[in-house]
Amino acid sequence: MIVGILGGGQLAKMMAQEAKKMGFKVAILDPQEEPPAKGVSDYHILGSFKDEKAIRKLAEISDVLTYDIEHINVQALKELEKEGVQIYPSPRVLEIIQDKLVQMQVMKEAGIPVPRFIKADKDELVDKALEFGFPLVQKTRREGYDGKGVAVIRDKSELAKLIPADSMLQEFVNIEKEIAVMVARDQEGNTVAYPVVEMTFNEANILDMLIAPARIEEEIAEEAKRIAIKAVKALDGVGIFGVEMFLTKDGEVYLNEIAPRPHNSGHYTIEACLTSQFEQHIRAITGLPLGSSELLIPAVMFNLLGEGNGKPKVIGMKEALKFPGVYVHIYGKSVVKPLRKMGHVTVVNRNLEKALEIAHKVKKVIKVVGDA
Amino acid sequence: MIVGILGGGQLAKMMAQEAKKMGFKVAILDPQEEPPAKGVSDYHILGSFKDEKAIRKLAEISDVLTYDIEHINVQALKELEKEGVQIYPSPRVLEIIQDKLVQMQVMKEAGIPVPRFIKADKDELVDKALEFGFPLVQKTRREGYDGKGVAVIRDKSELAKLIPADSMLQEFVNIEKEIAVMVARDQEGNTVAYPVVEMTFNEANILDMLIAPARIEEEIAEEAKRIAIKAVKALDGVGIFGVEMFLTKDGEVYLNEIAPRPHNSGHYTIEACLTSQFEQHIRAITGLPLGSSELLIPAVMFNLLGEGNGKPKVIGMKEALKFPGVYVHIYGKSVVKPLRKMGHVTVVNRNLEKALEIAHKVKKVIKVVGDA
Repeated sequence: MIVGILGGGQLAKMMAQEAKKMGFKVAILDPQEEPPAKGVSDYHILGSFKDEKAIRKLAEISDVLTYDIEHINVQALKELEKEGVQIYPSPRVLEIIQDKLVQMQVMKEAGIPVPRFIKADKDELVDKALEFGFPLVQKTRREGYDGKGVAVIRDKSELAKLIPADSMLQEFVNIEKEIAVMVARDQEGNTVAYPVVEMTFNEANILDMLIAPARIEEEIAEEAKRIAIKAVKALDGVGIFGVEMFLTKDGEVYLNEIAPRPHNSGHYTIEACLTSQFEQHIRAITGLPLGSSELLIPAVMFNLLGEGNGKPKVIGMKEALKFPGVYVHIYGKSVVKPLRKMGHVTVVNRNLEKALEIAHKVKKVIKVVGDA
Repeated sequence: MIVGILGGGQLAKMMAQEAKKMGFKVAILDPQEEPPAKGVSDYHILGSFKDEKAIRKLAEISDVLTYDIEHINVQALKELEKEGVQIYPSPRVLEIIQDKLVQMQVMKEAGIPVPRFIKADKDELVDKALEFGFPLVQKTRREGYDGKGVAVIRDKSELAKLIPADSMLQEFVNIEKEIAVMVARDQEGNTVAYPVVEMTFNEANILDMLIAPARIEEEIAEEAKRIAIKAVKALDGVGIFGVEMFLTKDGEVYLNEIAPRPHNSGHYTIEACLTSQFEQHIRAITGLPLGSSELLIPAVMFNLLGEGNGKPKVIGMKEALKFPGVYVHIYGKSVVKPLRKMGHVTVVNRNLEKALEIAHKVKKVIKVVGDA
């Protein structure tokens, strides 16, 4: 069995490692000469995940296709699926998720709590904003990622901050915490939810510290898991999904958005859970039963964001590993860019607060910097 | 940093996966076209681990060398070490371990309890056997592996079973249990011992079920760990070591033999311990601090031994994964041979006896067979 992955980034790398463990071969499609997944997979097709020819080449040598990024050529995948190629999650899911407005509409129709929203095309943004009321959050329908394509408009005076693109305008929610749940669904429709985790974000709106399990009441955690599973079922998705949610100051849980793939907020599962999100994804897309998502030990995860530019150099790895329960993942990207995800660190400890304390210390000592 | 591994088998594969996780590159030296480690490493030098030229080629592109098998060219490695190449564990360790007689002598001198033994050269086997007394165990000094090179001589009438090779004759110990401890030692001399595990063997003397933790008294477990750590220190070894021991019917613990590498009896650490034996080995040989060996959940491991010959086919994987806590590793060897290690299965469960029960069921459903 050959697993074909559109994309060869860190998510593809970690998927590939689990696939190889289970004895599958792995083929990746990536435009870079040396993507992170290259050194852990069997075949590398050099090409864009938007290029239909390249995607077809990947499909020809693979028994099943998946992807590690949303911004790919859905039409090409839909064509292939019609021709009988197995693709998980289905391109239909990807199509829904690529358009944030459609994603919200589908979730709302499924009876999943989402913040109030309206459609606002590029040419009617100001009128719609005034009609919708402030404060509001603008999300462009497409290509948003890690905070890109999102604008917070507090009042009329900030209308100039509107991004000129077809968008969805969303009610500004008073957020107590941002939480997330990884949900796996197999080809028979069985689902497994991971523990609810809690996220803190930095100025650039990139994940800062991920805390597992989330420090919230049990009932709220159960509610969040119910919503996450319902959302994945509503999509009829197969594979692993990262479901991001808001916990409001009045204890309401709203769905924020869904990633149809392994997710940054699930990296902690490699060390802390019985079955990692990556093995779970490989099991689901290859038609195997899901594993247990049980958390064996509390964990805190943070990303190693690039500093500077050039060839990557890891600084402070030895010092970092002197702390107990520290596990370092370096993705092997060939070039550093400021804020680029170059790796991540997971800290496990029976005492969650202790893990958090260690994580903050480790974050000060380990860095991935450019040599230029 | 590039980690060079002599050998590209399953141990090299699992080492490589941890090295890649941590952002290192991996080069392997293996005579096969498609060894298990190939698909998860960056460079493959096609050649024998006994061929000095090939070993030198590997050393040239690597920053540190290690190996996944004992039967390699020690003289070549000693030469390279003299020239300043970093090799862990040191060839000196390998040299001691390659000769079972010398290994026992070194351990005895270090004050480690070993069964009574004498040297017996090929031409004096019968006389020495008669002098030593029965029952006895003959172990050839070199090339013994998975039960090869071992003969049990119960009395005079069985002298014909003696293997014609320079050997060590060892007292036949009344074994209650065969136990083992993985010990990691870093470049600063710090050691970490894993839990004591218990092994059952099949007729061919290949590991059948590995049980972690061993079902033995706490004091005996502590004694076994002390012996294992002492043995690795006596070798001045750096890396991970598999220390096999006998627990006698009168509660004595004797050292049996040492493997200077990740060991079959340590595979359970991937799922059940905080730091796997493979990550621990990579940390040690790259000069990093060791991780915790804490057991998070009891585990049982068994090997998937090949049945028949030809191209491998995995049967019953789906059925196997329907059982809770089951993790399947398939090594990706290109050819099946009877009793060849094609993969392994780890079963974890909060209840050890339950894990054992599930392991026996799973062993009946999953097989790796040849298509010829």
